[in-house]
Amino acid sequence: MSSSINSEMLSYQNLQVNYTDIEHAYRKLQGVAYSTPVFTSATVNKLTQCQVYFKCENFQRAGAFKFRGAYNALAQLSHQESQQGVITFSSGNHAQACALAGQLLSVQTTILMPEDAPAVKQAATCGYGGNVIFYDRHTVNREELGREIAHEKGLKLIPPYNHPHIVAGQGTAAMELIQEVGPLDRLYVPCGGGGLLSGSAIAAKALSPNCRVVGVEPEKADDATRSFQTQTLQTVENPDTVADGARTPCLGTVTFPLVLHYVDAMQTVSEESILKWMLFIWERLKVVVEPTGALAAAAVLEQGAIQPHQRVGVILSGGNVDLAALSTLFATR
Amino acid sequence: MSSSINSEMLSYQNLQVNYTDIEHAYRKLQGVAYSTPVFTSATVNKLTQCQVYFKCENFQRAGAFKFRGAYNALAQLSHQESQQGVITFSSGNHAQACALAGQLLSVQTTILMPEDAPAVKQAATCGYGGNVIFYDRHTVNREELGREIAHEKGLKLIPPYNHPHIVAGQGTAAMELIQEVGPLDRLYVPCGGGGLLSGSAIAAKALSPNCRVVGVEPEKADDATRSFQTQTLQTVENPDTVADGARTPCLGTVTFPLVLHYVDAMQTVSEESILKWMLFIWERLKVVVEPTGALAAAAVLEQGAIQPHQRVGVILSGGNVDLAALSTLFATR
Repeated sequence: MSSSINSEMLSYQNLQVNYTDIEHAYRKLQGVAYSTPVFTSATVNKLTQCQVYFKCENFQRAGAFKFRGAYNALAQLSHQESQQGVITFSSGNHAQACALAGQLLSVQTTILMPEDAPAVKQAATCGYGGNVIFYDRHTVNREELGREIAHEKGLKLIPPYNHPHIVAGQGTAAMELIQEVGPLDRLYVPCGGGGLLSGSAIAAKALSPNCRVVGVEPEKADDATRSFQTQTLQTVENPDTVADGARTPCLGTVTFPLVLHYVDAMQTVSEESILKWMLFIWERLKVVVEPTGALAAAAVLEQGAIQPHQRVGVILSGGNVDLAALSTLFATR
Repeated sequence: MSSSINSEMLSYQNLQVNYTDIEHAYRKLQGVAYSTPVFTSATVNKLTQCQVYFKCENFQRAGAFKFRGAYNALAQLSHQESQQGVITFSSGNHAQACALAGQLLSVQTTILMPEDAPAVKQAATCGYGGNVIFYDRHTVNREELGREIAHEKGLKLIPPYNHPHIVAGQGTAAMELIQEVGPLDRLYVPCGGGGLLSGSAIAAKALSPNCRVVGVEPEKADDATRSFQTQTLQTVENPDTVADGARTPCLGTVTFPLVLHYVDAMQTVSEESILKWMLFIWERLKVVVEPTGALAAAAVLEQGAIQPHQRVGVILSGGNVDLAALSTLFATR
């Protein structure tokens, strides 16, 4: 990544999304996306000495916050673009979200998915009518492949996070959370490519200006944390993290400047911590979150730098976990 | 079980709970029990060709509907009874519920639990301040042991289901469901000792008179189904079902007449079906239900005798599942 690209990306003029865009997305999503519930837990509050609000995007359509961005992007296509169809690449949740948004808006969707994406995500994407093309994430650059097919077939490319309409759509989750529970002292958000994180941060700073926004990554995929610290875009290559939604190589030209401008801190959590607190959420909140969906909760529950009596928002970003392994376990009892 | 007891139990004069009792319980529980959410699923509706409403009692305080009955019973103790404390026996959820209700109402609780009750239920019961006494369910008659200790220590015995205040409290879940979604064609309810089932049936018949109420048991613990069919109390001994909340030996003197009078049908589901549909609920609804909590859902999803386009209520009765085994699975990846 050359320094000229970095300095261009970091220019304030390059902040491509603002709160008005999120309000606009919110109107597009009204009556289409679910206004997901906010859960609290006496056990969690006792453990953290804070009042913690979990925004349950695992209950969102197609099982994750991704639907908000995908629908917002597809709803703003021109007539011609809608007719020709779209293409996207995704390790899973954005794929399902695009397929469903396409189904709802009668837009043909072509989706590049890694061969090793969770089976449940592959099945759901096909189920929503997406035209799925599988690729080997160890040998193929998905962005290049996406651009090639898009060019060849005249399809509009809808990237999974690096697009203003995607960011604005994702920001509606934090907007709803703060509108429902009131101002927050802190907001913890999972970070993959930074779409949810930057959208959430824009919404939080608009609605709750003193809210400290913290992005959370797996230790094994800490590119955004390093990018944030060095103010220079850092990458990670095919990280072997259980949080498959955070395996993205780096922040994007849209999300990186937004993250630097609006986010207050980045934090990482270990694989062990992700799984431990994911299961804790299952057991105590009785809600199924996927590993990536539990990133922010893991950071909060590990008690990273939280002051007592604060009002803390946590985005549980998705719930598309593959239970096949669990079924096998039960079958052997 | 002698025939004289059976004929006494089946007398209409022996119907010890009516809808007024449920309304009374509802007022006692206001602001204390959670009014749990009702979930729907496009996938489930497509699969069943019905409109299915899941009443999520897994989100109830202490993780199951049992809190409704336990709190209602403890809230109606005399001053002296409250001072002396209560004793109960339970394979798990009623234990937790009593302990929590006791904590909230400042009533000392002594709880007999089988040694092999799920660890998560044992831990939670102790956590709520219950004085737990473990027993071997293969050698000890818990009712006799409970009566002995109650007599010895002057404690009031609060049985897990066979008590009018317990039944009335449990009935508030179905009452809330129908009040929220409107009349139902069918209501499916898990059945162990019949407290939830009889309470639900009373509420359903009052609020939605044409609603067909179906109780659901594991095949391996089909005592209530056989009792219903023969109109004579049948028992089962320590059934080895994964649905630990349905391991109760038989319906009770309070619940059996109510089940015969208000319930329209009983149905059983296999162990395989319970686990299959439990995991389906986790995966699709993103909600953690325990095996017993999934009984009614399993019956509906196996497509037992449902007519298309009906409005179907399903009580997901609890979510206290032990995830320790699952953690082990993840630890070995």
